[in-house]
Amino acid sequence: MPKRTGLDAFFAPDSVAVVGATPNELKGGHSIIANMLESFAGPVYPVNPGRDEILGVKCYPSVRELAGKVDMAIVFVPAASVPEVLEDCAAAGVKAAVLESGGFAEVGEEGKRIDAACREIADRTGLRLWGPNCTGLVNTDPFIFTPFMRAPNAHERLKPGTLGIIAQSGMLAAGFMLQYVISGYFTVSKACAIGNKIDVNEVEVLQYMAADPKTRAVVAYLESIVDGPAFLEVTREMAGRKPLVVLKGGRYEESAKAALSHTASLAGSDEVVDGALRQAGVIRVDDFQELMNLGKAFSIHPEPFRLSSPTGDGVAVITVTGGGGVVLTDLLRSSGLQVPALERRTLDALRRDVFPDWMAPSNPVDIWPAIEQNGLTAFGDSIKAVLADDRVDGVILLPFASRILDFFPFEDIGEAVRASGKPVVSWMFGDSRYFDTLEERMREFRIPVYNDLHSCVLVLKSYLNFSRQARSKSD
Amino acid sequence: MPKRTGLDAFFAPDSVAVVGATPNELKGGHSIIANMLESFAGPVYPVNPGRDEILGVKCYPSVRELAGKVDMAIVFVPAASVPEVLEDCAAAGVKAAVLESGGFAEVGEEGKRIDAACREIADRTGLRLWGPNCTGLVNTDPFIFTPFMRAPNAHERLKPGTLGIIAQSGMLAAGFMLQYVISGYFTVSKACAIGNKIDVNEVEVLQYMAADPKTRAVVAYLESIVDGPAFLEVTREMAGRKPLVVLKGGRYEESAKAALSHTASLAGSDEVVDGALRQAGVIRVDDFQELMNLGKAFSIHPEPFRLSSPTGDGVAVITVTGGGGVVLTDLLRSSGLQVPALERRTLDALRRDVFPDWMAPSNPVDIWPAIEQNGLTAFGDSIKAVLADDRVDGVILLPFASRILDFFPFEDIGEAVRASGKPVVSWMFGDSRYFDTLEERMREFRIPVYNDLHSCVLVLKSYLNFSRQARSKSD
Repeated sequence: MPKRTGLDAFFAPDSVAVVGATPNELKGGHSIIANMLESFAGPVYPVNPGRDEILGVKCYPSVRELAGKVDMAIVFVPAASVPEVLEDCAAAGVKAAVLESGGFAEVGEEGKRIDAACREIADRTGLRLWGPNCTGLVNTDPFIFTPFMRAPNAHERLKPGTLGIIAQSGMLAAGFMLQYVISGYFTVSKACAIGNKIDVNEVEVLQYMAADPKTRAVVAYLESIVDGPAFLEVTREMAGRKPLVVLKGGRYEESAKAALSHTASLAGSDEVVDGALRQAGVIRVDDFQELMNLGKAFSIHPEPFRLSSPTGDGVAVITVTGGGGVVLTDLLRSSGLQVPALERRTLDALRRDVFPDWMAPSNPVDIWPAIEQNGLTAFGDSIKAVLADDRVDGVILLPFASRILDFFPFEDIGEAVRASGKPVVSWMFGDSRYFDTLEERMREFRIPVYNDLHSCVLVLKSYLNFSRQARSKSD
Repeated sequence: MPKRTGLDAFFAPDSVAVVGATPNELKGGHSIIANMLESFAGPVYPVNPGRDEILGVKCYPSVRELAGKVDMAIVFVPAASVPEVLEDCAAAGVKAAVLESGGFAEVGEEGKRIDAACREIADRTGLRLWGPNCTGLVNTDPFIFTPFMRAPNAHERLKPGTLGIIAQSGMLAAGFMLQYVISGYFTVSKACAIGNKIDVNEVEVLQYMAADPKTRAVVAYLESIVDGPAFLEVTREMAGRKPLVVLKGGRYEESAKAALSHTASLAGSDEVVDGALRQAGVIRVDDFQELMNLGKAFSIHPEPFRLSSPTGDGVAVITVTGGGGVVLTDLLRSSGLQVPALERRTLDALRRDVFPDWMAPSNPVDIWPAIEQNGLTAFGDSIKAVLADDRVDGVILLPFASRILDFFPFEDIGEAVRASGKPVVSWMFGDSRYFDTLEERMREFRIPVYNDLHSCVLVLKSYLNFSRQARSKSD
């Protein structure tokens, strides 16, 4: 049996064939070839027996015609034709094939036979297979973009980042995450939709990302885990070093059954899965939105933070709305975080430099009266004082988006945050015309911004959780 | 002691004085007078001893000059001057005064003295007081808009709706909600920021809204409840008749203390409050975003829905993404809702009319393969079949926002939903350029749309909860 090669031929091929390329703009095979011709640095070969050229590029009837010229093939043809295409690939020396077509094991007996045929070819020839029933992968450096959705100038729009994304599941959940990538919600190193896992599975992709110096954090949507022990081994190794966030569907009998019918894979008992994931240091979430929000957070700041308190769970709130401080304190406490009394020196500093005489500072730090009296510098001064407090491991800011942002002491905030090495997260509320300004300025200081308090709490909790893992590993 | 009049003079005054009106555009007193002159149907009188006219309108030195001419006064002057203004108001026959200024009991001893003086004037003269330390109120029919934020052409932009909003707390949380109103996230009947509650409190405002035929549902942010028994009496009366959603801050010692310092009011023990609220049929939430999302839901559909199952908690999911269906099922189950097996006749209909031969229908109903085979009519056909199922009390839709929406069977969906009388909620994911289309079309059929699954579950759960209250009341 041939030696199986690693995943480099997927993430950094020198040359690519697109099997099923077509000039019909309504078809996925067109999007793939158009995206690849536009964005891939090396040679791209369209393959389609019915065409001489596509988009001005010579088209080949079969991969066999390209013997020795192709590292990776992207395959988007009906399932029944896939085994023959794979034989052609193996014969032509192709190392890796991304199968984006559906119609395999998830659609019944005929699909299962095709599935088995592909598996046999992979085993016999050493050709590595990705998919099927997926959108493939995106790598931002070197640039490769395989999905069958058209993304004009993807290589210019998708700036290299440090986040790795893994999505099992059908094409749409993966497409959803892709939209976040394309919309700039975060920047990524690699985004992978792994589909039915005939060959490459979530464990191997996670191992690759764990070792990849360009990937500093990973978020993953999974429906099943094929090799539990191997998966837990890599997650344990990552704990405290690279943040890993997992949305694992199928917690209940009904949903586990749905997962089974939909990607032809077995979901394990959730109690066992959940305990194992938590023990292995994985941050587990329940909703796509949460996964994306933590993706943004760890894309902005993948490193562990400095913890100053022994428990590493003390949070201070700095707010322009007393009501927001009250509700946020409830959410922090019910999520298991603490809202500690501030140190005497912090309170003294706030009393002396920030607060009006009639008002005693406490945590949450309600600074609206101070702003009314002393202007917006109160915001910067409070953050500085609070971040220096040894009972405070992280801070949540509740500023008000409005024209006052034009006079906001962003530089002071940034300096205080950088100097402290502590995590800071911001809520975004008020006048939505100022949201972009708030988000962009905060991002300069690596402060992620969310428009609901639940997300602020989840993100800060995850930052602290990961930082505690790092601290206990280094002990 | 004079008889206290009700709140009509606040919500429907014939004429209004603005005390503290100013031509200085940077000040709140300018926003109030500009908003009122532009949007209020009756006479508006600026009051400011230092000006002869403001915005081209004759200005009066004191309310006393307007004896018999003014129903309501909006007062935005420093706290120390407020008692004198109120004496003027009482002397001039003003029935109601909205105090928007801060600097009362929340700022210490001097503020408390002013507070007591105002209270005494109200008791002695019968002048009703709203606030202080708040933005006042908005009524969409008849139109009145008192907040000190400038909102050009408010009367044209704020279309009358059926939702009532109550926000205690300082100005910013109220301003936050106001932004949702102004941005069109929902339409309202009345939006009230009640502030420090010298006189008018949340109980009286809620009683007013409970009796107001133009208000069909209420969402409220509260930090304290001054008269628990009276509050619970009105909520019990509303249960099953008008939905009431409450965000009550101050669950923990730390947050209760913050609430106290910030609005000078006592927050009760949360266990007692929580139990009482739930027993009285109140839907309680934890975050402003949740409050706003339920505000949108009950603004779109304030009536109870028809429940077909005995337990009234059976949910069907219709999804174009298998993964989304799996994750949503987990969220539904962990929120206490059921994802029942569909009736045989439903499964037969799906098998016959919608699904490909190789695929067995179940709940969640994964219709992507059916769409691939039969086109988008599969979406409408599935909804029709599922809504007719007696085990299904409500449905969550997971469509994909993309150019396929141009061919989407919205009319079929709308017809099926209308005919069934059951609640339907939709997720919004995919290409954000199509979000507005999806949201607007769904809203025509009274289907609220959210971009996270948590919100879809919370809203459907609240719809069903309220509908069960209505059913048990009519039994």
